[in-house]
Amino acid sequence: MNIADRLVIVILAGGSGTRLWPRSRQALPKQYLDLTGQGTMLQETFARLTPLAPPERILLITNQHYVDLAREQLPNLPSGHIIAEPMMRGTAAAVGLGAVMAQHLRPDAIMASVHADHLILKPERLRAALAAAAEVAERGSLVTLGIQPTFAHTGLGYVEHGEPLPPAQGHPVYRVVRFTEKPDLPTAQRFVADGRHSWNSGLFVWRLDRIMQEFAQHMPELHAGLAEIGRSLGTPAADATLQRVFPTLPHQTIDYGIMEPAEDIAVLPVDIGWTDIGSWGTLLEVLEADEAGNVVRGNDPVFAPDTKNTLIYTAGRLVAAIGIEDMIIVDSGDALLICPKDRAEGVRQVVDWLKRTGREAYLVDTVAPKQ
Amino acid sequence: MNIADRLVIVILAGGSGTRLWPRSRQALPKQYLDLTGQGTMLQETFARLTPLAPPERILLITNQHYVDLAREQLPNLPSGHIIAEPMMRGTAAAVGLGAVMAQHLRPDAIMASVHADHLILKPERLRAALAAAAEVAERGSLVTLGIQPTFAHTGLGYVEHGEPLPPAQGHPVYRVVRFTEKPDLPTAQRFVADGRHSWNSGLFVWRLDRIMQEFAQHMPELHAGLAEIGRSLGTPAADATLQRVFPTLPHQTIDYGIMEPAEDIAVLPVDIGWTDIGSWGTLLEVLEADEAGNVVRGNDPVFAPDTKNTLIYTAGRLVAAIGIEDMIIVDSGDALLICPKDRAEGVRQVVDWLKRTGREAYLVDTVAPKQ
Repeated sequence: MNIADRLVIVILAGGSGTRLWPRSRQALPKQYLDLTGQGTMLQETFARLTPLAPPERILLITNQHYVDLAREQLPNLPSGHIIAEPMMRGTAAAVGLGAVMAQHLRPDAIMASVHADHLILKPERLRAALAAAAEVAERGSLVTLGIQPTFAHTGLGYVEHGEPLPPAQGHPVYRVVRFTEKPDLPTAQRFVADGRHSWNSGLFVWRLDRIMQEFAQHMPELHAGLAEIGRSLGTPAADATLQRVFPTLPHQTIDYGIMEPAEDIAVLPVDIGWTDIGSWGTLLEVLEADEAGNVVRGNDPVFAPDTKNTLIYTAGRLVAAIGIEDMIIVDSGDALLICPKDRAEGVRQVVDWLKRTGREAYLVDTVAPKQ
Repeated sequence: MNIADRLVIVILAGGSGTRLWPRSRQALPKQYLDLTGQGTMLQETFARLTPLAPPERILLITNQHYVDLAREQLPNLPSGHIIAEPMMRGTAAAVGLGAVMAQHLRPDAIMASVHADHLILKPERLRAALAAAAEVAERGSLVTLGIQPTFAHTGLGYVEHGEPLPPAQGHPVYRVVRFTEKPDLPTAQRFVADGRHSWNSGLFVWRLDRIMQEFAQHMPELHAGLAEIGRSLGTPAADATLQRVFPTLPHQTIDYGIMEPAEDIAVLPVDIGWTDIGSWGTLLEVLEADEAGNVVRGNDPVFAPDTKNTLIYTAGRLVAAIGIEDMIIVDSGDALLICPKDRAEGVRQVVDWLKRTGREAYLVDTVAPKQ
């Protein structure tokens, strides 16, 4: 039997952020937004994985507030495969919950943990990499897909490549010497310069027994809670147990909680067109542009004479942008963002201002754009 | 008796243009818009004139489509003083209609003709100038208030100053040698350079018998029509006569039809902070700005860190403009305009595009912004 046929894919879709404000809101985080014009990020994530694993082997972990969104966006995913976290407890608990659900689904599963809010421009290579990673995981390692760093990003994790391990399906594989989450800038610069580091993509593949063993060793409290939830699955007490136990789990990320202390990690360097969408500027860089370099999305008329290298998201009203260069223009139901592309990080300032001035509604609610 | 007490002021408020798109629409031309944040242009026009002439001596000529707007915006103007043109026939007919209405109101009136869509930053000086112009008009001249040209504007009329006439209330007055409407650029440049030309402000003052005499001489057809309308005033046939005769009047501007051929014109050079609002760029130049040079209007929250010399009109949604300079950002109910301030003339391109692509609704209708 092909190892990849044992893959159970856990999609993490419960996060909420403000970096893509004003489109991304607490009530509608970016994974549920259509940013590319080809479906929401969650839908794209699902569509790129189903050639590798049918919906019956896909699980989705999300916050209870987003269950309806997820159901609506993924009508082909069995509804019992959408698992609602009663509250946010960080990615360690989310991944752990995915692991016990996967174990219940298929005890011999190789689990792949993926994020619903990453952009992956080369889906075929992703599938090939996950299949190869499943082979490496079967040997016992925790596997991360490694991304060639292009700058000294301080918001990601870095893995240092050690000795080469046997390649898998033609992919080189390295033992990871060290996993460093969110290094400071000088460290990140050193990592990028030395050629021996990859970014951690957050795309993990492992055997279920191996990840549970790591939970037991490095997060025993979490492990105990997960085990209790796991024992309840398939019984009438399942939901009540989840509701009772989940809020008591330690709040931690999988990166700090498991990947940093874990020992047997392997990295599979990949070129899958991976981007974590950190800002509107990132989208302008990676999305397909027209001849003028403009990325225009939305269902409204746009007139942009002499406008270049500009990102325009419409939301129910016409946009006329004349003679603009290197700008971000994002309309939404109740707010409009305009900034040069190199000031896209300034969204953070806006978010601070909204909080400071009691305008949280602009961070939380969505307003349906006029059509 | 003070001559100014015989002033009857005719406000022309029937025009419609597209230079302030997307706010200005056929259904809501700029004179009915609040551009300054202190009332609509019509309301500001009315408010700056009432210290000189009470509402009983003010008449408003507008297109029938705008009568309700005018009534609503000027509740203190006697409703019989709002005269509806059955259709647009140019400013000669509009001014002529104002003249016969003024004659009916007060046969010995000195008429002042003003536009509802001009910005006048020094209203006190305007009133003093109109009072002085009334004195000059009483002597028999057609009077225009002259504006010191600041550049070779080819969209205005120019008056060449001739011999000095006796000053009026301390204002110097000159005989006009020639009235040149919309010169070509070299001519306009020559006019600006020679120091002997003023812009025609479109603010005219004259005795009623004198302007009727000019109509008779230079536009006899218009004069005959106006006389017929005039005879019907105060009779039951008044409205039917207006409806029947007005559409037959020649379509012409007062500038080409009367001012160019007329002989006894005087100019009173004034410094009244006059601007015909030709573009959003003009508004950015003339409206009061904050310390950063930004002109922000509208009822919505605006966050503009590191943004300078930028015009922002909101329309029912929050605007976050980060690190922007020298830009025009105009939101409206159904359209958004963004351009550098030196591209504000580009609105014309947008208008052409809207017509070409069958999107006239964006030129005609207004959509109430979400509040």
